[in-house]
Amino acid sequence: MSEVATPHRAASEAGDHFGLDAAFVDGVAEALRSDDKERIRKRVGGLHHADMADLIEHLDDDDRRLLIEAVREDFNPEVLPELAPQVRDTVMDALGFEDFAAALSELDSDDAIHIASKLTEDERAAIAKRMPQATRMLIEQGLAHPVDSAGRLMQRELVAVPNYWTVGETIDYMRAAQNLPDRFYVIFVVDARHRPRGMVELSRLLRSKRPEKMQDLIEKDVEPVPVEMDREDVAFRFKQRDLVTAPVIDKSGRLVGQITIDDVVDIIEQEAAEDILKLAGVGNTQVSSLYNAIIQTSTSRFYWLFINLLTAFLASWVVGLYEDSIAKLAALAVLMPIVAGMGGNSGTQTLATAIRAIATRELDSSNAVRICFKELFVGMINGLLFAAIVGVAAGWWFTDAMLGIVIGVAMFINMTVAGLSGIVIPLLIRKFGSDPADSGGVILTTVTDVVGFFTFLGLATWLLL
Amino acid sequence: MSEVATPHRAASEAGDHFGLDAAFVDGVAEALRSDDKERIRKRVGGLHHADMADLIEHLDDDDRRLLIEAVREDFNPEVLPELAPQVRDTVMDALGFEDFAAALSELDSDDAIHIASKLTEDERAAIAKRMPQATRMLIEQGLAHPVDSAGRLMQRELVAVPNYWTVGETIDYMRAAQNLPDRFYVIFVVDARHRPRGMVELSRLLRSKRPEKMQDLIEKDVEPVPVEMDREDVAFRFKQRDLVTAPVIDKSGRLVGQITIDDVVDIIEQEAAEDILKLAGVGNTQVSSLYNAIIQTSTSRFYWLFINLLTAFLASWVVGLYEDSIAKLAALAVLMPIVAGMGGNSGTQTLATAIRAIATRELDSSNAVRICFKELFVGMINGLLFAAIVGVAAGWWFTDAMLGIVIGVAMFINMTVAGLSGIVIPLLIRKFGSDPADSGGVILTTVTDVVGFFTFLGLATWLLL
Repeated sequence: MSEVATPHRAASEAGDHFGLDAAFVDGVAEALRSDDKERIRKRVGGLHHADMADLIEHLDDDDRRLLIEAVREDFNPEVLPELAPQVRDTVMDALGFEDFAAALSELDSDDAIHIASKLTEDERAAIAKRMPQATRMLIEQGLAHPVDSAGRLMQRELVAVPNYWTVGETIDYMRAAQNLPDRFYVIFVVDARHRPRGMVELSRLLRSKRPEKMQDLIEKDVEPVPVEMDREDVAFRFKQRDLVTAPVIDKSGRLVGQITIDDVVDIIEQEAAEDILKLAGVGNTQVSSLYNAIIQTSTSRFYWLFINLLTAFLASWVVGLYEDSIAKLAALAVLMPIVAGMGGNSGTQTLATAIRAIATRELDSSNAVRICFKELFVGMINGLLFAAIVGVAAGWWFTDAMLGIVIGVAMFINMTVAGLSGIVIPLLIRKFGSDPADSGGVILTTVTDVVGFFTFLGLATWLLL
Repeated sequence: MSEVATPHRAASEAGDHFGLDAAFVDGVAEALRSDDKERIRKRVGGLHHADMADLIEHLDDDDRRLLIEAVREDFNPEVLPELAPQVRDTVMDALGFEDFAAALSELDSDDAIHIASKLTEDERAAIAKRMPQATRMLIEQGLAHPVDSAGRLMQRELVAVPNYWTVGETIDYMRAAQNLPDRFYVIFVVDARHRPRGMVELSRLLRSKRPEKMQDLIEKDVEPVPVEMDREDVAFRFKQRDLVTAPVIDKSGRLVGQITIDDVVDIIEQEAAEDILKLAGVGNTQVSSLYNAIIQTSTSRFYWLFINLLTAFLASWVVGLYEDSIAKLAALAVLMPIVAGMGGNSGTQTLATAIRAIATRELDSSNAVRICFKELFVGMINGLLFAAIVGVAAGWWFTDAMLGIVIGVAMFINMTVAGLSGIVIPLLIRKFGSDPADSGGVILTTVTDVVGFFTFLGLATWLLL
């Protein structure tokens, strides 16, 4: 493999752990502007489709169009599923509906359906017109399934044989068949009504003698995935059972497709990554995508910030109740962010742990009470420690022992509340059927801010003034 | 499959989206206390090993021991890799070194090595003594590789054939061989010096005629993974190339093992999930594990909280510079948390997006400058919007137009700084070779707190007093 064709490896070996080699991207951009198509094709010719997709994403819009123009003749359709939707729009634009429809038709059905689902109605209609009948049907059927269902994930292409076949018959069939999927890991065994009886791993098949019956080679314990199952549940099952492939069945129990691990890897990564983005208020992939325009990014983030502003005003209102106390003793204003902030920090530690444990189903109703008590005690222990540290530091700073005692007590109360809130809030949100990562962070910091300001300023007003 | 054996499905169908069915766990716990081994075995008999592991994790320590005692005779070793290390310690204790060593010997080498790596020196020595020579050697060799390397991930068991073999010879060999792995997806083709020439997918092999040469069936574009490659790079390559299996080579280029997708799925999930935990200061798996004892959890979280306390004092010190201003106009204390907090929130939006984009290698040196400018503008746009909203609200609340203008200007400055910091800080941390998720959050909120308090109180002192 030539050096040009392995931009990732070259970068990694140079000690730069970033993705695409910057020099490589710059080289391509330069070639694009020279408008020398031969030179461009030479540079990107040997690229793997995933690297080609990365390259397209790293270029700016104009360069993306120039690149597509240069490689139009031998554009690899496999590039399309690897692109961010916003970038794919540009590529579709540059390719034109005719070529884009042709590229889509060459993909596996699950990829084609996924891409079609991201288009507008008009775009979809324009592309459907230019597709072969069979592909159009497959895509329409796929889109009829709900967005997050197994039906959307599955591919229709699979290998199924009747349960009374022998190993020999199966192998002969496979050698003769023309339209098998490119890659597959199992053969499904179905009964006369096309209901899956089980799967046979290829490694098992290869080691069996020709006269053996397929149904005797079936792996046990593989339950079919209903077409309407939520994709998170599908991902959980794949992880839990170390599956590489699972059969998908419709309501009548017929085998209608298969889900393979590569589709599930993307979901597992997305679900795990979503938590951090949601907690930070950019959980929607539309919001967090690097490829959005400035205005799009600003407006999509605005909503979350506005919610936060309302809670910030709530906390300020609490402070406002003690305006007179602060006017008399400004040290209260100096110290109050510490009480509120430390509560927020320790509560967030618990919250993040809880969100992950709920997502991986380690934390559920069967151990919730035990873990709540544990977090309460953890909050109290660290509350005591930081009460002592902050109390002594504040008393010394303002040479006022009573102020130290007041802030110490407030710290202890707020960190205890924070520890308990960090676990109870996500559990309650889950109980009401929502995702704790979505709103857990705002609710938690509102609680720790309000409790922090209220206890510290309230105690100070009562004991110091 | 009986209902008892599918506790997850039962739970999910009842509309409870948690993991193990709580009633099932309670039922087992009750049976355990009745000390009726027959009844216990009947309840947990049909469980899949992953569900058995979940069950053990959900019980408390005493019940865990009772359960192990009850199932000791037919304990399934596959349960062990699925357990959290802290829980596995209890299981090892209950099983005793003899049985634990026997169980370990039955696992694939990658799982056995992983488990051994989590033990103390003494435990490892006690177990090694009780193992067959061959297994002990495999584990020792595995542990010689660095923790995060491909060498730790790989399994030694694989199927390799010489490049001059035919399909027929390969199939005959597989039918006759006794010690092949349970499951495999490819056959490696090696030269005379055992260097991998490539892999042949089983689906390809099955469809080929017996006289065809193995080396003519090789898939292109598969580069071997060096044994010392970092596991994050391995995971990236699997995702980028949609791999299911990759060959691992030692320094002399010889094939020494294979990595399969199920090992990589765990890493992909861990790496994606780590970000949220790190940002919240519980990134170390030791810290975030649900199964730690109270004292262990408290002390491990203390360190991060202490760092945060130091930065909180820094912010308080800034406020302290303006103690006199606050004494004159306590409204400043009421409003200042809004300026600092909104800066923190908007900066965190950018930070979380950047951390994910760096982790997935979408953001790198080739597009960093463009994205920095974008985030600067996004920060300015939302800064302007919130300056207007907060300015009007504060001016109206305290019936002081000038106070509204001052807080508006401070909001604009802080949110602009926050947007830029949210992207520049993680890029800088990355540049210096650290993980932005580790310290990005603390640094960012320190910046937004200090800048927020400083601009708001500074401007107010200058313009209002």
